[in-house]
Amino acid sequence: MCEANAYLIEENKENSLIMEAVDRVIPEEEGIRLVSIFGDQKFLKGYIHSLSLVDHKIFIKTERE
Amino acid sequence: MCEANAYLIEENKENSLIMEAVDRVIPEEEGIRLVSIFGDQKFLKGYIHSLSLVDHKIFIKTERE
Repeated sequence: MCEANAYLIEENKENSLIMEAVDRVIPEEEGIRLVSIFGDQKFLKGYIHSLSLVDHKIFIKTERE
Repeated sequence: MCEANAYLIEENKENSLIMEAVDRVIPEEEGIRLVSIFGDQKFLKGYIHSLSLVDHKIFIKTERE
């Protein structure tokens, strides 16, 4: 399988794991919806900052620079 | 391996393949840099719109909605 773990990047903090085994990231009006391969969903007021797929990592930020 | 193919989404057009086997997507001042597992790089004035990782797909848009 080719899912990835989603991490939140915050200034002056360590990256924190938001959701494991993310399949889809879908943009919505005020943010993004993460959907895991198990069907779990999580909505976040943020955007996809960067990807490192071979490491199975999606990085999310909540504030625009 | 867990790379994905990057597609450009454009209004009234079919999605077009930009790069295969993308490992990393890195934000830059004016857009994003795609880096494949082979080390190929491509810069685009755009942003990551959505992901469908089990399908190995990254969707890129060049214009904010």
